Amino acid sequence: MTHHLGQRAQEYLKQLAECSISETGVTRFPFTLEHKRANALLTTWMEEAGLSVRIDDAGTLIGRYDAGNNTKTLLMGSHQDSVKQGGAYDGIMGIVLPVIALDYLNRQGVKLPFSVEVLAFADEEGVRFPTALVGPRALAGTLDESVIDRKDKDGITLRSALLNFGLQPEKISQLKRNPGDILGFIETHIEQGPVLEHEGLPLGVVSAISGIERHQLTFTGQAAHAGTVPMHLRKDALAAAAIITIEAEKLAIKLPDLLATVGQLDVTPNVPNAVPGRVSMMIELRSPNDEVREKAGDKLQTFAKETAQLRGLGCEISKTYSQTATHCDHSLQLAIARAIAASNNPVYQLPSGATHDASAMADLTRVAMLFVRCKKGISHNPAEYASDEDMGLAIEALIELLGDLQC
Amino acid sequence: MTHHLGQRAQEYLKQLAECSISETGVTRFPFTLEHKRANALLTTWMEEAGLSVRIDDAGTLIGRYDAGNNTKTLLMGSHQDSVKQGGAYDGIMGIVLPVIALDYLNRQGVKLPFSVEVLAFADEEGVRFPTALVGPRALAGTLDESVIDRKDKDGITLRSALLNFGLQPEKISQLKRNPGDILGFIETHIEQGPVLEHEGLPLGVVSAISGIERHQLTFTGQAAHAGTVPMHLRKDALAAAAIITIEAEKLAIKLPDLLATVGQLDVTPNVPNAVPGRVSMMIELRSPNDEVREKAGDKLQTFAKETAQLRGLGCEISKTYSQTATHCDHSLQLAIARAIAASNNPVYQLPSGATHDASAMADLTRVAMLFVRCKKGISHNPAEYASDEDMGLAIEALIELLGDLQC
Repeated sequence: MTHHLGQRAQEYLKQLAECSISETGVTRFPFTLEHKRANALLTTWMEEAGLSVRIDDAGTLIGRYDAGNNTKTLLMGSHQDSVKQGGAYDGIMGIVLPVIALDYLNRQGVKLPFSVEVLAFADEEGVRFPTALVGPRALAGTLDESVIDRKDKDGITLRSALLNFGLQPEKISQLKRNPGDILGFIETHIEQGPVLEHEGLPLGVVSAISGIERHQLTFTGQAAHAGTVPMHLRKDALAAAAIITIEAEKLAIKLPDLLATVGQLDVTPNVPNAVPGRVSMMIELRSPNDEVREKAGDKLQTFAKETAQLRGLGCEISKTYSQTATHCDHSLQLAIARAIAASNNPVYQLPSGATHDASAMADLTRVAMLFVRCKKGISHNPAEYASDEDMGLAIEALIELLGDLQC
Repeated sequence: MTHHLGQRAQEYLKQLAECSISETGVTRFPFTLEHKRANALLTTWMEEAGLSVRIDDAGTLIGRYDAGNNTKTLLMGSHQDSVKQGGAYDGIMGIVLPVIALDYLNRQGVKLPFSVEVLAFADEEGVRFPTALVGPRALAGTLDESVIDRKDKDGITLRSALLNFGLQPEKISQLKRNPGDILGFIETHIEQGPVLEHEGLPLGVVSAISGIERHQLTFTGQAAHAGTVPMHLRKDALAAAAIITIEAEKLAIKLPDLLATVGQLDVTPNVPNAVPGRVSMMIELRSPNDEVREKAGDKLQTFAKETAQLRGLGCEISKTYSQTATHCDHSLQLAIARAIAASNNPVYQLPSGATHDASAMADLTRVAMLFVRCKKGISHNPAEYASDEDMGLAIEALIELLGDLQC
């Protein structure tokens, strides 16, 4: 069964990948012709699976597997959009797999004790408009509606993009769901990292979506001639930045729940024969454990200030971004784990370092995520790939989960 | 005496600073109207000092204090040109001070047992044309004449710039001096560093002009999502570059004759949420001791390769530049030291980390340099400054030196 379903997922994703403005990789932004074409394909497949299809005013395409009135609803799905020249799996695979799972159940004539809705959110990547997650936020009632007047780089507001897409942005506030009607939200997604591949496992249960904080550091020393200033009279901003870079790595190696990255570092004046007078750098910390992350952030800030003081440098530090972790629901995690175990696959739990629609959905209902192994951990790249076999196992797990889940 | 002569130097340098195309700082490139105006001022002052003035076909203005036929000649001087928006002292002060010293001797009716020529070289900074030191190289017979066909950014060749300046570039090869006729070359220059100020001293004797080597390093790891790749699966190019940066600093602190600078470092992709996949960086080493410098370069190359290997990174290293040290002549150093001591100033010896006309003159004759304290070590900057008092002491030392020097 598995392999056949996985091949079908691969075929669907191939057709969806053609809904792209770029020839290299997939470029599908929200509320575009490509989005419309992808929705048309999804609608066809949803209807074939026995789902009733509609689109809400935030642009979320919804396929409902209805179990009748007075049933609660399990929400599944992910986002349809891609980054610029991204891959064919990130987001949209999480729409295709539950549709195929429901199609299977429908063909088997299975009646579930709850309704299921597969959600294809318009925009999670936030590439076109300076906002994201409008769809899930509208469902959770957490949307700041002022974002609807933000513009893309061509000056088109999200409002007029929604109108052109045939939607009524003024009705978005009516989309809020009643948490009492919802069983939970389960998102299936490629891992976007190398852990499952490294462990030799096709599937993983997500424990939490990591919290994130970013610290902007600027060290100010004294730019100087590299030949005329002795070492003891230098105020080298890069030497301090190098020490912090290594300290951040050390700390993250020591604390298993922490990731620390110095991804951005800019040197001034950045010429071979001048002692660097100024370095600005960004430290990003991620952890499924907010306390671990916050303590690490405080520790690195203190360490940076002390290092600057010791070296007679100026040091400005500010935490420019902070987002707490989203914990996945324990009983939904157990249900996913049972479903994976049912097809004799080992159960492996891991955090998600990337943000997902589930982060925003957590404000409405309990959430959980099923991760699918992706080749070399590559994502946001044309080389992004998940195999037929792994997607087949994921569909099998979703079928098992839906049959097993208690309302 | 000293203060009065220093004031005169300051006044001359102020007038010369006005020969500039920039209003901020001094911008005086070779073979320009500004160069012509500066030469006119220098010619006036040289003639007032009893020097006979001419310009050679490499554009070097020469003022000769003649002691008659069959005398050897002591060469003094420096360059007239500045960097873009540079200062009023770098180079040109080394022309003005010996002219004032000779003027003093001339007015005192002093007859020297040797002739003296003050040389105002056209171009040491190499900002206008992609070459430099044409004047001293022509005297030393080490000029690669093909550089005369190199062009400035407006497409003007050095050859046509020389012709427009009234010179005959085809005769440059005839400028080579006979080493047997020359007593030596003494260059007076601002320190361009903070050492003399830090030591509380107006003057210093240069031991050597440091040799330089540059190493271009590129670490190649794997760019990756900062949230999805655990620390132990990362190949972070910046972490390796940070380790090398600190190691270079450590090595230079340990070896007193070595300066090590990582002045340039570029991160790819250089965004907050990606593990850096590639870092290119430049290490510059300077030392008056070639063996110390070369050993340090080899050591850092080995260390970088080992670090890359340990971390599973690619590493490309190449030595892109190398220039050996120029040792200042011992007996000329002693003569300068005696001259400094004669006015009750402490004698302090230091290397020059920057290159000077003396580097090229060393191919013709023995060289030595007198350093003058500059404010905060600032150079190549409109804020460049040497005080009346310090320049006065330097002139006094030159007068003493000229009177004392044996031929």
